[in-house]
Amino acid sequence: MKKQRYAVIGAGALGGLYGGLLARAGFEVHFLLNRDYDHVMQHGLQIDSKLGDFHLSDVHAHASADTMPPCDVTILGLKTTNNGLLQDLLPAPTREGGLVLVLQNGLNSESDAAAVVGPENVLGGCCFLCSNKVGPGHIRHIDQGRIVFGEFGDRAIEVTPRVQRICDEMVSAGIDAHTTDDLPKTRWKKLMWNIPFNGLSVVLDASTKELVDDPDSVALVEQIIREVHAGAAACGVTVSPKSIATTIDVTRTMVPYDSSMRLDYLAKRPIEVEAILGNPIRAAQGAGFAMPHVETLYRQLKFLNQRNQNG
Amino acid sequence: MKKQRYAVIGAGALGGLYGGLLARAGFEVHFLLNRDYDHVMQHGLQIDSKLGDFHLSDVHAHASADTMPPCDVTILGLKTTNNGLLQDLLPAPTREGGLVLVLQNGLNSESDAAAVVGPENVLGGCCFLCSNKVGPGHIRHIDQGRIVFGEFGDRAIEVTPRVQRICDEMVSAGIDAHTTDDLPKTRWKKLMWNIPFNGLSVVLDASTKELVDDPDSVALVEQIIREVHAGAAACGVTVSPKSIATTIDVTRTMVPYDSSMRLDYLAKRPIEVEAILGNPIRAAQGAGFAMPHVETLYRQLKFLNQRNQNG
Repeated sequence: MKKQRYAVIGAGALGGLYGGLLARAGFEVHFLLNRDYDHVMQHGLQIDSKLGDFHLSDVHAHASADTMPPCDVTILGLKTTNNGLLQDLLPAPTREGGLVLVLQNGLNSESDAAAVVGPENVLGGCCFLCSNKVGPGHIRHIDQGRIVFGEFGDRAIEVTPRVQRICDEMVSAGIDAHTTDDLPKTRWKKLMWNIPFNGLSVVLDASTKELVDDPDSVALVEQIIREVHAGAAACGVTVSPKSIATTIDVTRTMVPYDSSMRLDYLAKRPIEVEAILGNPIRAAQGAGFAMPHVETLYRQLKFLNQRNQNG
Repeated sequence: MKKQRYAVIGAGALGGLYGGLLARAGFEVHFLLNRDYDHVMQHGLQIDSKLGDFHLSDVHAHASADTMPPCDVTILGLKTTNNGLLQDLLPAPTREGGLVLVLQNGLNSESDAAAVVGPENVLGGCCFLCSNKVGPGHIRHIDQGRIVFGEFGDRAIEVTPRVQRICDEMVSAGIDAHTTDDLPKTRWKKLMWNIPFNGLSVVLDASTKELVDDPDSVALVEQIIREVHAGAAACGVTVSPKSIATTIDVTRTMVPYDSSMRLDYLAKRPIEVEAILGNPIRAAQGAGFAMPHVETLYRQLKFLNQRNQNG
């Protein structure tokens, strides 16, 4: 079967890594770059990864979506806070009907892409990944790396051939890729990590290690995880209760890591507070379930984000 | 009627001000001082107050409780985090049976003093006061000033003559003093301010003005106030629902103010997290009522306090 052509929008910690791995494996991958365009055109992409460091000197880099060719799969790794740009960025690479694979954080993060290209052309997934962009065109992948994705919306009940094909290609490129026939479950499970660890790392100015090492923060982390787990259940999404303990245990074994939200906050970028906390709160509320611990964190983060953006 | 003799233990923002006002009015007031002893012996006490600035050159200062005479009323203004000292500090001034008036923050803050001098010798009260110690023997009283106090424990059902007598003396000294026949209500009402504004001022590193000016923090403040109000009700304490709005409105009209907990935190002193948050949470829990917003704040504060004390 002919290899599919990929686009990567948001070539940061996530898009840079997965796109880079696909390109290394011989896939045609087109990267949309913003500030890093000149650097990558000159110096290529550098990936430092626990899977082995590598360098791509010959990158299909684009300074504008308009120069991108039609692609079979557009990987969306942009921060959700930039989703206002999707109506300008997605039409070009999807103009011959390709798919958009939304790997953004949060709940219902597929909706914004779906509004541009139609829900039937959207897949969604979560990355369990410790990776940071450490410089222009320079990604450092320090731990984990799993990606789980599948159909979105009404179609999220089976693993379709188009999902399986992308997964097979990713696996052939050395990516720890998995399919899911239950995207909502995958997203809520990820939220069980993202909400406490992203949220508290900003509010308490702490690394994941500090949060799991202190008895009070770890007690709060666990309360929040339980609340998110129950919020998922209220929304009709059953996550195994084992995941409550696993989420903390996995973090204990992780290398000390600055969550993406903390890095955004420290760099004075907007934080993904609506995608990661606001949307799940509203989804649970719509199902008649309140998440007061999460809500406290949400309000605190909005206050801090507002001050951070003003200051 | 003969004027009563007063002791002040903890001559800071609160004890320094009220003790100073009593001394200015001609009451015999004995101050127990710690680091400020030498300074106050040499330079006296300086009170900058919205009631008028004044200076006391001739102060009954004590470097140790052992030199204090028996007093009719011992005003306890020490931070609750120092209550381990009470067994050494209270016996001397109360040795002929005087009363202890506990003006410390929090819920059940009278219990520690009661364990030393017996509950029948303890009164309790709350100060609604913006006052800071700004230097050795130097108090700055910037806003408010009301003090409300009454009998503690089983006696907290009427205004006894001994309570009325202290109140009359305070009023004669220019203090905005009031009696209460319902100390639990007074304490919970104060907690409706203290929990959100002390707690969030530390976690969000913000002044009271910042907290009431931002829509997200003020929404969280209101949720917390409602939760504390409901927690009081669960404990059988009925605070008028009007107090929910009043608590925020009063803060809007206050001069921008650093809460005592924030000042303690910034000065790397232990914060009163158990008295102000832990005790109310446990009291409500004992009555079968959970306060998840407050609990989130409590865990966050304990984490921050621990790190602050270690660092």
